[in-house]
Amino acid sequence: MSRNAYAGKVVLVTGGLGFMGFNLVRQLIDADVKLKVLSRSWPPMPGNIETVLGKATFLHGDIRDPVLVEEAVEGCDLIFHLAGKSGAAASNASPLEDLDVNGRGMLTLLDACRRLNRPVKVVFPSSRLVYGANEKQPTSELAAAAPLSIYGIHKWTCEQYLLLYGRLHGLRTTILRITNPYGPFQRPEQNRYGVVNWFIHQAMQNNALTVYGHGSQLRDYIHIDDVVAALLAAGVSSQADGMIFNVGSGNGVSFLQMAELVVKKAGRGTIKHIEWPADDALVETGDFVADTTLIGERLGWQSRIPLESGIADVIAKYRQMDPSEPWAQSS
Amino acid sequence: MSRNAYAGKVVLVTGGLGFMGFNLVRQLIDADVKLKVLSRSWPPMPGNIETVLGKATFLHGDIRDPVLVEEAVEGCDLIFHLAGKSGAAASNASPLEDLDVNGRGMLTLLDACRRLNRPVKVVFPSSRLVYGANEKQPTSELAAAAPLSIYGIHKWTCEQYLLLYGRLHGLRTTILRITNPYGPFQRPEQNRYGVVNWFIHQAMQNNALTVYGHGSQLRDYIHIDDVVAALLAAGVSSQADGMIFNVGSGNGVSFLQMAELVVKKAGRGTIKHIEWPADDALVETGDFVADTTLIGERLGWQSRIPLESGIADVIAKYRQMDPSEPWAQSS
Repeated sequence: MSRNAYAGKVVLVTGGLGFMGFNLVRQLIDADVKLKVLSRSWPPMPGNIETVLGKATFLHGDIRDPVLVEEAVEGCDLIFHLAGKSGAAASNASPLEDLDVNGRGMLTLLDACRRLNRPVKVVFPSSRLVYGANEKQPTSELAAAAPLSIYGIHKWTCEQYLLLYGRLHGLRTTILRITNPYGPFQRPEQNRYGVVNWFIHQAMQNNALTVYGHGSQLRDYIHIDDVVAALLAAGVSSQADGMIFNVGSGNGVSFLQMAELVVKKAGRGTIKHIEWPADDALVETGDFVADTTLIGERLGWQSRIPLESGIADVIAKYRQMDPSEPWAQSS
Repeated sequence: MSRNAYAGKVVLVTGGLGFMGFNLVRQLIDADVKLKVLSRSWPPMPGNIETVLGKATFLHGDIRDPVLVEEAVEGCDLIFHLAGKSGAAASNASPLEDLDVNGRGMLTLLDACRRLNRPVKVVFPSSRLVYGANEKQPTSELAAAAPLSIYGIHKWTCEQYLLLYGRLHGLRTTILRITNPYGPFQRPEQNRYGVVNWFIHQAMQNNALTVYGHGSQLRDYIHIDDVVAALLAAGVSSQADGMIFNVGSGNGVSFLQMAELVVKKAGRGTIKHIEWPADDALVETGDFVADTTLIGERLGWQSRIPLESGIADVIAKYRQMDPSEPWAQSS
């Protein structure tokens, strides 16, 4: 992260208290930006809020509220639009809600920018889930969009909004298609954000980690610090304007391998295989590994945290956060 | 049209009093179906409503109303989902409204089907505007989606909803990507539905037909009767299930040529060239001609009405509709 490039900038993070947002906000606080955080979550996290948000301006409300969003975007140099609902299976169960929060939320933000702040830069985390099931790995940004969930459909829809607002109204935009992020600082009610986080949570409670079928499908797991580095690089590089980049480790790790690593690093938990539930089988994409050549060439970004040390880091942070919990003791 | 295949079927047409819907409904009335028409437009058309809707059940309301939509979809064998807002430039000016009517409207319909009527078949008119600017013509269904308007983005989004609901819930769906339709029976307030219709309207008033630039861009104009034939073929063919088909004439005609044909056939009107307005230049796709090989192979459909006789047909119908108007006299 080139912190000098950020000093003095007015930066808005929507969804700034979610899993990805909170990790980003922590780094932006250190980078001496004039920070605005828009979130409907409150309180922000267990623990000391002031040490986290510091001098940031906190806007409490919903991304679909045009008045609040106008206030938020006015005068910004840069927006990280992270507000939204997550989860492929959840989106298929509640498609209208996903459309409203993720689709209408994004359009509300962009339309406020169109009216009040056309020179702004907008960085948006999309998802590998726009790609759908694909046989040839790794997957480059040129692969066809073929999402298997409402969540994936709306990610693609939002990508197109961004490209269109760039074309029609001059907004500068960057889209990052993120693979499977994991890391510390999830909100307690979001402990299912990403299966690695969920497995770490389960292992530390000494519970069983449920693996569907053989767990042989490859995934591309990436530590949230690597994702945040990509977000920050995209935010200040003109090389990123108008671009869509994959953001992943570039390494395929089987689901079972990942689960075994979690159990090994936590020193707790067990692995249990069950049959694929029908709902999950329907949204299963098969192997996925990101081709990250493009972002490497354009922004010089690459992932730096190997999965094994990344998992160890998350477990260590859990233990720090609440050393009185039984799972916080090293075994 | 294979009318026997329709006899006795319960068929819903949403947006059944719009331009496309009304032309479809007229044919379905003749095909002895049990017809339901859902529309928020009222009265249906100038002229005699009973002769048009006959024994059809008319549901007056909005496609976003889940209670009305549940009533509409229950017990249907087949749904033509034609309700929605049209127009690329209009959608860019009112993106949130386009999302609400076209995106939420479609999801409301599909979710009602999921709950009440999973065996139903749904036929949806998408648009060539999902493709965006493309250099190589004709364009097949395999070309990448790259829409230049909110309207085109939401057409693609709705296509994906249909494919997903097919996959997740077993709905049978067919998507028709229609080129530039024209024809009789537009609603008076919709006289800009398609530029051919608008030009015919203008020519018959002896007004100038405005051509941007040279008017050399190729378009694929198709008479609405040909479109209706494709809709009807898709509705009863299992070969159409899960498919996306282009529906066009397959012939490229320059914009200027089309305008000249209109003036010639109307015997009135003039042609005026002006510079491209900025808004329109931004959504201009360049040449577009549909490759219709796939629907020909699968459904045996092809367009039958040449542009010249199609335009003459529309003008003749205008003259029939109101012979007292000055433009109704042959010149």
